[in-house]
Amino acid sequence: MTEYPVRVIGRVESSLTDPAAAPRQADEGAPDAWLVFDDRYAPALQGLAPGTDVLLLTWLDRAERDTLTVHPRGDATRPRAGVFATRSPDRPNPIGLHQVHILTIAGTRVHVRHLEALDATPILDVKPLLTPDR
Amino acid sequence: MTEYPVRVIGRVESSLTDPAAAPRQADEGAPDAWLVFDDRYAPALQGLAPGTDVLLLTWLDRAERDTLTVHPRGDATRPRAGVFATRSPDRPNPIGLHQVHILTIAGTRVHVRHLEALDATPILDVKPLLTPDR
Repeated sequence: MTEYPVRVIGRVESSLTDPAAAPRQADEGAPDAWLVFDDRYAPALQGLAPGTDVLLLTWLDRAERDTLTVHPRGDATRPRAGVFATRSPDRPNPIGLHQVHILTIAGTRVHVRHLEALDATPILDVKPLLTPDR
Repeated sequence: MTEYPVRVIGRVESSLTDPAAAPRQADEGAPDAWLVFDDRYAPALQGLAPGTDVLLLTWLDRAERDTLTVHPRGDATRPRAGVFATRSPDRPNPIGLHQVHILTIAGTRVHVRHLEALDATPILDVKPLLTPDR
């Protein structure tokens, strides 16, 4: 099995600490949070702007990587689906994808609105939004 | 530096083989391509449907991981920006994010429209689209 190493470039600082209490989607009551990047990545943040939305990629380090099917939203009354057809954190590569709104930027600390990631979740990447028309 | 191993769960089969000739965005002439998953991940594909769009995550294995700033779109007349504000493949974790339209599914082979990834690019994950309203 071929593998590549992903580097943790920062961490989420959030009031969300209990996986069982975490909202499943950002629009279900996720709190504002800080993205705290390692100082070495400061140059890579140039051009990010408060008031804009970006995509945040995280590593869901508390996920199960051998799970291939799940009951959607953990509801056992719903038929199992393949994890690639769901947003389950449990999947072979537990990469979280979050659209976040940047509130403020202070050095290598970025304050964002409504992030459904647990405190200390590793950050992998930040990207511009996909263009709506592909 | 903390690292985690990502697993290659499949590969792109594409007529795109020359990085220099590859389109920078899917809407700039990218060809249709096949996503070929390892057989062991067949259960994880259940629920994917032809005629729908999904997000594809790839590992851009020919990217430079120590690049932190770039001239956008490789245009030296444009001022440098941090890679997190651009779609440059060169970035600390070269994870490609592509919205693709599923044409057909044959076992663990998924045919998709307009994919700007090179032949043999490793596949990491498939996810539903982000909901438009967050």
